[in-house]
This record gives sequence, C-alpha cells and structure tokens, in this order.
Amino acid sequence: MVLTGVTSKAIRKGGAEPPLAPGTFRIYNMRFCPWAEKAMIYVAAKGIDAEVINLNVTDKPEWYFSKHYQGKAPAIEHDGKIVIDSGFIPEYLDDAFPETRILPTDPYEKAQQKLLADRLTAVAHAVPCLFAVMRDRSLKDEKQAKVFEVLKMAEELLTDDFYAGSTPGFPDYVSFPFFEKIWWSASLDGVVDLPTSSFPGVEQYPKLTRWFSSLLESDAVQSVTQSIRDGAEFMNAYATHGELNYDLGL
Amino acid sequence: MVLTGVTSKAIRKGGAEPPLAPGTFRIYNMRFCPWAEKAMIYVAAKGIDAEVINLNVTDKPEWYFSKHYQGKAPAIEHDGKIVIDSGFIPEYLDDAFPETRILPTDPYEKAQQKLLADRLTAVAHAVPCLFAVMRDRSLKDEKQAKVFEVLKMAEELLTDDFYAGSTPGFPDYVSFPFFEKIWWSASLDGVVDLPTSSFPGVEQYPKLTRWFSSLLESDAVQSVTQSIRDGAEFMNAYATHGELNYDLGL
Repeated sequence: MVLTGVTSKAIRKGGAEPPLAPGTFRIYNMRFCPWAEKAMIYVAAKGIDAEVINLNVTDKPEWYFSKHYQGKAPAIEHDGKIVIDSGFIPEYLDDAFPETRILPTDPYEKAQQKLLADRLTAVAHAVPCLFAVMRDRSLKDEKQAKVFEVLKMAEELLTDDFYAGSTPGFPDYVSFPFFEKIWWSASLDGVVDLPTSSFPGVEQYPKLTRWFSSLLESDAVQSVTQSIRDGAEFMNAYATHGELNYDLGL
Repeated sequence: MVLTGVTSKAIRKGGAEPPLAPGTFRIYNMRFCPWAEKAMIYVAAKGIDAEVINLNVTDKPEWYFSKHYQGKAPAIEHDGKIVIDSGFIPEYLDDAFPETRILPTDPYEKAQQKLLADRLTAVAHAVPCLFAVMRDRSLKDEKQAKVFEVLKMAEELLTDDFYAGSTPGFPDYVSFPFFEKIWWSASLDGVVDLPTSSFPGVEQYPKLTRWFSSLLESDAVQSVTQSIRDGAEFMNAYATHGELNYDLGL
C-alpha cells in the first residue's frame, strides 16, 4: 500500500486542482477531520494505492465544489467516478474492491457490524461536549460526565479484542477517529479527566484501553493520523473559533 | 407475495409472544411509524412472504426487548436471526434475498442511490415541524416554510420518474413514508397549506406530485399503508401527547 501526499499542504481557495493521472485513486482529505479520517483509515486498511489531496475546508478551493456539492471532505475519485461522504465511502470501497473486503460477506454478520458501528456513533456525538469545555472550563464536570457515559457504553459493547471480532474490522475503523478526538482533548489542560497514556484508562475501561492502543499502533492508523499535540492544538482552535492552521505539523 | 397480519391488533405489555413457525419470515411493525413503514414497503416490494406483528410501542410487550434492545419497531426475524433498525433492514434484505435485489449491483450506482436517500432524510427531519404546528397553530407560517423548502429540494433532486431512475427503487421506498406523513398532516385543519389531492401540488412540485401519486398507488405501498384519515388522527394524537390508539382503523 502506498499513500502519497499524506503530508501535502492543504489546498485553499485560489489553489489549482492537481492534475489527476489516469487510473489514479484519489482521496480528498482534511487532516484533522474525524470523518475524513474514517475514509483514510479504510483506504489504508484495504491497502489501496491512493493519492491524498489535503484541503483547507474553511477557504475551499472553487473547483472542489464540482467534486462535492457542499465542498466537504472526504470524497474519493477514481475511474471518473466520485463518491462522497464518510457514511458511504467504506462500504463503497468494499463493493468496488471486494478482494480486500473488510465487512463480512454474510448478510447477517455484515448487518450486525453496521449496527454496532451505528451504536458507536454515540462517541462522535460526545465530542462536541469537549469543544464546549475548551470554550468554558466551568462546564467540565457536566460535560465530561457525558463522555464517561459513552466510554462506559463502548466498553460494554466490546466483547472481543475488537468490535469486529478477533481482528479489527468495519466498526473499529469507522469509530476509531472519534475515540482519538477524545484522546487528543485529554492532552489539553483541564478539559477532561482521562489519561493520555493508556487511554482511556485501564481501571475504568480495561478492554477499551487495550483496543485503543492496538488500533492506534496499527499500520492503517499510523499511516494516516496526526500527532496528539497537533491534533489537540487544531481541535482547541476549532472549538474556540481561533485561526485554523491546516498545515500544522508539516 | 403474501403479507399476513397487516391488520392484526397491536400487541401490548402483558400480551404473549406469538409462536414463530419454523421458516417464517417475521417483521415487527408499528402501523403508523414511518421508520417501520420503510421496512414494510421494502419487504412488500421484494415480494417476501412475511408475517407482520403489530406492536404497541408505548406499552411494549416485555418479550420484545429480547428482539430489540430498545424495544423499537421495526425488526425482522427469520432463521433464528434478528436484524433491527430501518437504517439497516433494507440493505440486509437485498443481501439476504439477492434474487429480488432492489439496490443496484454496481458499486458506484449503489452508493449514489444511498447518498440520494440520505439527502432525502431532510424530509424526515421536516416532519417534527408539523408536530409543532399541531400543538400550536400560531407556528404555522414559520414551520411550513421549512417544509416547503425541503419539498423544493426534493423536487430538484428528482431528475427521472423516480429517484432510482425509470422505476422505483431504494431511495423511493425508504423516503416515501416521510412524504406520506406530510400528506397526512395536510388533511388536518390549519397545519400546512398543501393539497391532499395531487399532493404536494402540481404547480410548485410537478415532478414530485407525479412521483408521490405513483408510489402511493403502487402495490408495495398499498399493501402496507394506512388511510390518510387514520394516519392524520394518529399523528395529531402523537403530537399533542394524546392517547394513542394503535388499532385505529382496524
């Protein structure tokens, strides 16, 4: 698997569309966006050779609206076809590249993994609680209680090494970025009482802590993710309506 | 296709679980719920022989929590397997009964139809606007503006006879129940200025009006839907926190 352009600078308004070589599989990404990261991890886990185009989604390049009607990341483009939205890209990739299928072929098992991933979207819904604390530390106790509740649910739903079973699969890859955003937040002073080492904590969440560490260290995640320092800085700027540096860490 | 039990009385708390004959495909339904209706229409459109169990989801039968952890409708049960949630049942049915596949087999076309269905969930999100007007008629102008906006978007997204193309398909079947809920609401006095005959109106929404009429008259919809009178009465009772008669019209 070769991902090129992972560390390329974000293209902003006025920036030209990079020429797309025939046969190239391209993914439009935003380096700190968990939804884009879902698609990036899936592409990496499937071992697809891909060209990554990083975008500035505040000042979006004009040409990108011809790819995605709202100008959002992620989107993928190959063979003249564009598929948008992290909610649809992973399954599309399994359908289009069945030889590296991640979802089970059995209809029932596939439906169960999708349902599990759906229940884990509660983690994504908890992330705005942390944004609120980044803006106002006095909200910490109230907001982190919600985060702990969601982590407790995630711990209970984890009945094997991974949500997909003995190896990582669909529910693991598509939910990981949101757990990672909580981890990033934990590195900011006074936002949430969770450890950054052995996250989210062996005492309260023993299974989830092994799971998070295993996913974080996997090749798929390592090949597409950002450092906790850059991630936390970007999230904090986003939450507090500060200036966003899309090229942080490059 | 034989759907049995469509007009069976709703089972409530204390009611026994009907014995499931081996090989029977069963669907747990709530007659006035648009999410359950998505699954019901899909089952009907695929021509699956199914036993319908109607539920009272206010006073849920205890045994039903062993089928669905939240006790919600819809769920399907066959061959000892249970799949819950209208967001997953249609695709599961296409995977489990590929001989009557409704979604395209081509990965790109399939993804596009799912994306279109996802954009049409804006219609579902507009339905609570009508509940608000049912509770307080003074909100009509403000709330119906949102409904008209969504219908306008739906009109623009309809570029063929159906969202799926020249024949009804996935985006048509899974979005229809929410358009139908707006239609039901239009029959209540002073809720929304839309006609109940030639809904939502040939002047403003010519393509959508043909589409709605065609879907409404289809065998799949006719075999599972309720009358506009009963539907409107149930919706109004739901919106105004009145007593819900799950057996209305039986």
